[in-house]
Amino acid sequence: MLKPNENYLKLKESYLFYSISQKVAAYLANNPGEKLYRLGIGDVSLPLCPAVIAALHEAVEDQAKKETFHGYMPECGAPFLREAIAAHYGKRGVELSSDEVYVSSGASDELGDILDLFDRQSSALIMEPAYPAYVDANVMAGRRIVHYPSGVENGFLPAPSPAAEADLIYICSPNNPTGSADDRAGLKAWVDFANERGAVILFDAAYEAFIEDENVPHSIYEIPGAKTCAIEICSLSKTAGFTGTRLGYTVIPKELMRRGMRFGSMWVRNRTTKTNGVSYIIQKGGAAVFTEEGQKQIKENIAVYKKNAAVLTETLDKLGLWYCGGRNAPYIFLKCPDERNSWSFFDMLLHRAQIIATPGVGFGKCGEGFCRLSTFGSPEDTVEAAKRLTEVFG
Amino acid sequence: MLKPNENYLKLKESYLFYSISQKVAAYLANNPGEKLYRLGIGDVSLPLCPAVIAALHEAVEDQAKKETFHGYMPECGAPFLREAIAAHYGKRGVELSSDEVYVSSGASDELGDILDLFDRQSSALIMEPAYPAYVDANVMAGRRIVHYPSGVENGFLPAPSPAAEADLIYICSPNNPTGSADDRAGLKAWVDFANERGAVILFDAAYEAFIEDENVPHSIYEIPGAKTCAIEICSLSKTAGFTGTRLGYTVIPKELMRRGMRFGSMWVRNRTTKTNGVSYIIQKGGAAVFTEEGQKQIKENIAVYKKNAAVLTETLDKLGLWYCGGRNAPYIFLKCPDERNSWSFFDMLLHRAQIIATPGVGFGKCGEGFCRLSTFGSPEDTVEAAKRLTEVFG
Repeated sequence: MLKPNENYLKLKESYLFYSISQKVAAYLANNPGEKLYRLGIGDVSLPLCPAVIAALHEAVEDQAKKETFHGYMPECGAPFLREAIAAHYGKRGVELSSDEVYVSSGASDELGDILDLFDRQSSALIMEPAYPAYVDANVMAGRRIVHYPSGVENGFLPAPSPAAEADLIYICSPNNPTGSADDRAGLKAWVDFANERGAVILFDAAYEAFIEDENVPHSIYEIPGAKTCAIEICSLSKTAGFTGTRLGYTVIPKELMRRGMRFGSMWVRNRTTKTNGVSYIIQKGGAAVFTEEGQKQIKENIAVYKKNAAVLTETLDKLGLWYCGGRNAPYIFLKCPDERNSWSFFDMLLHRAQIIATPGVGFGKCGEGFCRLSTFGSPEDTVEAAKRLTEVFG
Repeated sequence: MLKPNENYLKLKESYLFYSISQKVAAYLANNPGEKLYRLGIGDVSLPLCPAVIAALHEAVEDQAKKETFHGYMPECGAPFLREAIAAHYGKRGVELSSDEVYVSSGASDELGDILDLFDRQSSALIMEPAYPAYVDANVMAGRRIVHYPSGVENGFLPAPSPAAEADLIYICSPNNPTGSADDRAGLKAWVDFANERGAVILFDAAYEAFIEDENVPHSIYEIPGAKTCAIEICSLSKTAGFTGTRLGYTVIPKELMRRGMRFGSMWVRNRTTKTNGVSYIIQKGGAAVFTEEGQKQIKENIAVYKKNAAVLTETLDKLGLWYCGGRNAPYIFLKCPDERNSWSFFDMLLHRAQIIATPGVGFGKCGEGFCRLSTFGSPEDTVEAAKRLTEVFG
């Protein structure tokens, strides 16, 4: 009899979002019609920008006519998009060839798929609190997880240490859920650590578009030595509002190899075997993001979320509450006042301020005592939420 | 040092399409400007139908406005599409709940991803000639491949036998590359074989829309017992011209489990960990395929390819050449005349008739001595190619 992948039995159930929805439903049952302020969402709320919409419509029209119809796309991405992304990296001083750029359906898809390149006996370092899929995707593959906690003492930006010994090193900077973003020196330490040990960094750059500080790199390849140790996985989800439209990209430098095997060549073989490329329509929409007009328009959207961040961080500053993030990232990680735990603070915010946050403990044990606030909501709701925070804690 | 997945070292390079392109380039260098008749392509040539185009434009407009914007989609598929597909199965007598239907980016993507559900010590039965990715995806996972050849003696529709013992059984019917399609009795034998042994069938139904014969099932679930042994993977690529637009669907019945583990639940966990769903825009376009208007329009396109098939099979019948396929499938598998091998016949077709075919040996050893002809070309070119076949072999 066929044996299923029994690693799935080791997966832990996460009740985070289920519990949130249950608690919210119970609250609304007792308080019908009450308006809630949703600072828990990890999804964007602004529509796609006009340049992208125009490109999508054009691409749909191409698919309507025999002369312009596109069938199977190149598995690693359309040349027009791979070149646009490589040129985009070039503008910030990272030289990439377009065949080091691979188009994907999004960072979450790619973070799952890319693990096929690595032996299942290898280990994975997860800096916590973390996006839960990092752990689960590796548990499914039977890999050993090295949990690496962080906290207030390092601003949720842990440095390498002997306890960080692992084959794969996940780095998400700017970070989900903490909003903390590593600077050049911080990332350099990890690049050196990985190169010395022959580890490979999986660098999740999904939130790079929110970076303001000059000293915070948008790409791991801004750090010398990164091309021999890092794969960068990026997405247009938060950069350009593509969460439901789906597009991302991955960089695998030609220099990156271990034990004589080149990961770029392996990935080409993987993609040509396991995909038929990403939708022509969506790739055309994505290419519009990298035009001058597209860049201007997506920055206007990001400015709206950054304004929300400023409203919230100014309020927290006035209230004297500890938090990180909100400056180079769309998330704020708030220390719950009065030594409350995450769920107790969640309940208090819901009942006393009608605000929904995300309990930090849902991202790993060391997230206990924190809550994640998102800046992706509407400006009006964010202003009202800030006012209510002041009323409750001021 | 990180160990790469060394199973990749066991992959064989395929030079099939590379060799074809080299030979064609050399021919054109010697015969500049010569018109070629491409019966080698596995891609569609007709554009998307009007109902799909209209739905795609509408969905793009939805993404342009805050009120109708869609962010993250449900990982297993949008309810509107899952319900439309389940209803479509219902019309041909297969009762499915919409949560047994999973939306994918296409069959090739899904055929790669779904293997995560099975233990890597399991074995995979590949009936050859076969789509090369079946073998490669399993080699990447370290699985033992059971090659199961077929030929003229069984019309390229092999029956189960003790030599077919394996944990996973790939069935592609109607078949790529042979165009042969199994009837109820043939599929029933495989379903019984799988149920008796606890094997799981991966049923690739990508070409079901080309079936004409009443006795050839469109879905494996038309066979009693299939829900306890089969996963069906389908695609809109050939059904509705989505090769470059990307959309497919997978059915995992609730009854399907092995050693106490339910594959449907495992797949939900896989999708929620490793994807963020398929593009809203593309899912809306796909839903239009399942409307009355959409069904009528896609059938008009398929009728064009079927006309091509009739032109070619009538010619081969007149010439007295052996082939299979072309009736319930868009492919024809032709026995090379005069005991020629696949490449020698390829050269002859190219040089004497300016026709490009696909050498059968590229799909496995038992494909030697055959060529695949595709019916996806333009009607004009297909008619001219048929005329040239008659001139050369008549």
